[in-house]
Amino acid sequence: MDSNKNEIDHVLKQAEVGFQFLQQSDVIERAELMYAIATEIETLDEILIETAHLETALPLARLQGEKARTVNQWRRYADAVKTGLYSEARIDRDPNGQFDLRKYNKGLGPVVVFGASNFPFAFSTAGGDTASAIGAGCSVIVKAHPAHLKTSQLMADAIQRAISKYGAPDGVFSHVISDSFTIGQQLVSHKLVKAVAFTGSFRGGKALFDLAQSRPDPIPVFAEMGSVNPIFLLSDYLTNNLEAFAKQYIGSLLLGVGQFCTNPGVLVGFSGEQLDRLKLALKNELKSASTGKMLHTGILESYNRLKSEMVQYEGVGILEEGQDNTPGEFAQALLVEAQATQVLTNPKLLEEVFGPFGLVISCSDQAEMKALLEQLDGQITITFAASEKDIRECTELFAIAQDKCGRLLFQGMPTGVEVQYAMQHGGPFPATTDPRFTSVGPDAVKRFIRPISFQNWPNEFLPKELQDGNPLQIDRLINQQWTKA
Amino acid sequence: MDSNKNEIDHVLKQAEVGFQFLQQSDVIERAELMYAIATEIETLDEILIETAHLETALPLARLQGEKARTVNQWRRYADAVKTGLYSEARIDRDPNGQFDLRKYNKGLGPVVVFGASNFPFAFSTAGGDTASAIGAGCSVIVKAHPAHLKTSQLMADAIQRAISKYGAPDGVFSHVISDSFTIGQQLVSHKLVKAVAFTGSFRGGKALFDLAQSRPDPIPVFAEMGSVNPIFLLSDYLTNNLEAFAKQYIGSLLLGVGQFCTNPGVLVGFSGEQLDRLKLALKNELKSASTGKMLHTGILESYNRLKSEMVQYEGVGILEEGQDNTPGEFAQALLVEAQATQVLTNPKLLEEVFGPFGLVISCSDQAEMKALLEQLDGQITITFAASEKDIRECTELFAIAQDKCGRLLFQGMPTGVEVQYAMQHGGPFPATTDPRFTSVGPDAVKRFIRPISFQNWPNEFLPKELQDGNPLQIDRLINQQWTKA
Repeated sequence: MDSNKNEIDHVLKQAEVGFQFLQQSDVIERAELMYAIATEIETLDEILIETAHLETALPLARLQGEKARTVNQWRRYADAVKTGLYSEARIDRDPNGQFDLRKYNKGLGPVVVFGASNFPFAFSTAGGDTASAIGAGCSVIVKAHPAHLKTSQLMADAIQRAISKYGAPDGVFSHVISDSFTIGQQLVSHKLVKAVAFTGSFRGGKALFDLAQSRPDPIPVFAEMGSVNPIFLLSDYLTNNLEAFAKQYIGSLLLGVGQFCTNPGVLVGFSGEQLDRLKLALKNELKSASTGKMLHTGILESYNRLKSEMVQYEGVGILEEGQDNTPGEFAQALLVEAQATQVLTNPKLLEEVFGPFGLVISCSDQAEMKALLEQLDGQITITFAASEKDIRECTELFAIAQDKCGRLLFQGMPTGVEVQYAMQHGGPFPATTDPRFTSVGPDAVKRFIRPISFQNWPNEFLPKELQDGNPLQIDRLINQQWTKA
Repeated sequence: MDSNKNEIDHVLKQAEVGFQFLQQSDVIERAELMYAIATEIETLDEILIETAHLETALPLARLQGEKARTVNQWRRYADAVKTGLYSEARIDRDPNGQFDLRKYNKGLGPVVVFGASNFPFAFSTAGGDTASAIGAGCSVIVKAHPAHLKTSQLMADAIQRAISKYGAPDGVFSHVISDSFTIGQQLVSHKLVKAVAFTGSFRGGKALFDLAQSRPDPIPVFAEMGSVNPIFLLSDYLTNNLEAFAKQYIGSLLLGVGQFCTNPGVLVGFSGEQLDRLKLALKNELKSASTGKMLHTGILESYNRLKSEMVQYEGVGILEEGQDNTPGEFAQALLVEAQATQVLTNPKLLEEVFGPFGLVISCSDQAEMKALLEQLDGQITITFAASEKDIRECTELFAIAQDKCGRLLFQGMPTGVEVQYAMQHGGPFPATTDPRFTSVGPDAVKRFIRPISFQNWPNEFLPKELQDGNPLQIDRLINQQWTKA
């Protein structure tokens, strides 16, 4: 569908019909629809992979993997929805018959999804936001990402085929294609829209957030806007792992040409001979590593601009540049260094440079490292490259870090995000607009629900999730006890 | 404490220390602190009741009941916190040892609470917002309600005594007294504050919401701003219950001089002989009923102003006025009537008049009733005065109502709010700023938490909620299975 302003109203009216349809479904029926969508996506042939490859420059193997992950997301989220976990059914009956109160979570309403360019499958049209919104019982309107319109169309077609076979109305999923920036604004401002999911830049996410909060009726915006994912290097760990760490770090920094929101853009260590040796090891690793083509020229241009701004700040020195530098095509990796004292006076140095860019910060002591941690904005991840002994000696840093991120790692690298219940992909502002929710893992469904209580209703009018006899056999909290009875 | 601008920083620094203390506590330790606070409040003698009676004009018996409810809230929320329900512990371990991911909910940070004037105990200084925030592991800063400062101080003293006996730092709970409107703004704008809870007027709540969203780092605001709680009268039900309904309705309308956020300010029925008879019955009930003194002169003035505006709108007719009309003291109840066609063209008629004011709206048919329901703003409650037969004949109204409210009643009156898991006290904007949460019942704790994932951490550094062996014996979702193991 090619959209213009007049069509938005029509799209939203259809989406409202789709929402009402999903509201009448129970969690088991909704899970069936999600499994059907998963199968339809799984069935898509090589044309999907080739189309995405041409549009995003992402390698074929990576896209094959991402397709499998996307299918898996639909299935895992459906598994979770089906158990009733997100229904949170609660029944309280007064023993004297004064009240019969039953509460469960329903969908918020139509949800607008703005996909990410760096995950054309798993975080775009048919990605985690769409899957979790439908799992919550919400209809979805996807604004196709302009950088992979054909891929988006193939995915939208697959979802729509599954919806049609299932017998659901078209409005359960709508696909809006438009070059116009204002279409996105119109969608977010539309009175029938009840929530927004976005993955992308801080500027884009914050603009949508502000727009949604200035509506006559503000609505939630779940914008995942990235972060620098700092790694704190502690001494005892580095003593035995210096070379391995350098290898692992450069691998993580260059993975996917640095185009991950969990890319570890900042390393923080203690000045001295050990950090000097690490810098040498990092230089050696970077020299021999190659990166690749970025997703699109806009991202490359932005990367080059931010990079050149960084090296012009006072106190920033170049450590090493990467191999690839075909102009206008490939991203050249860059590792720079600075003293913590510089960073503490120039917060710009802690802003994200989306791409294979790393900054190594030297602290003179633990107090300076603490000051730096305190100055940090919210992050998706923080990693301690540390031994157990190291952590025991810096419990204060460990405590502060917990208020600064959504996921805290002991060793390892932040890139690589598991689609699991225990995953938190989010973090305090400005990593996201709402640290109370995750955009990865089945818990992503929670973003799109709200509770409603039914008081004294006869059984026949209640949603199945709350009916006597528990026809869906979900876990429910009845008179303060969890039971399937 | 008498506050000025320079002291806010000090209060917040203390609150941050209190927050860090609570973060180090586990759910069982936190529940112990809550039980201790409950006992300290329970121990308060008649001076509390008398002070509150003098400050709010609420009857002694009502205040005794509200005190018991307040104590009960602390205990019930502590019971819930202790089970780990709000920790939502999730552990996912890769069978191949690639990852060990553990997630739980931690407190957001210091929370500012603005209490309500109409519940000086249960929704003010030591009320549900404070109890649920501390249950979530957040420290609390209460801005004392200017209409009951002495009551607020007695409650604050009780909380602080319990905190001190427990050995927790003062900053777990702070009490700010100030006439200045800007102190509230400064609190909401302070960078260490992470959430706000408010109960009161739309104007007040929306102003705090806007302020919080315009911070460099926006924070959640849970403002409960009231609603008109419409009752939809259906014919079959009224046939057998007309007199009883009239009695029940006037009782609910006048309860607490109409000063409840669940006060049923709007009745919607079908024009005709039945509704005419109901109006007569309502008039008879109102004539013989007495109201009483309002909470403070500001509320009475506002009630009188809004009431006189209402009767001046086109098409609004006076049905009956109540007995009490001692000028400047008592609120005179008022029942008015209008045609749905008038209401559909003048949305002002659906705005709340806080106090014993009711509007009876006549619809010519079901289509008009549907149009009215669709025009409704978000409500805390919607009630169907209906029989089962009635509901079967208006399933569309029933479906729409679910998107318009937090609690949906079959028969009965919306006043009377049970402190239960299954209670939803909230509703779509403008009833609240966030319909995804409740401010009554243990689930109120959910407003003040956010998840954090720990990846590959040795057991000793994990919070007890996530440690091997489950030392707190809470329910946890381990590799997709709920278990206490």
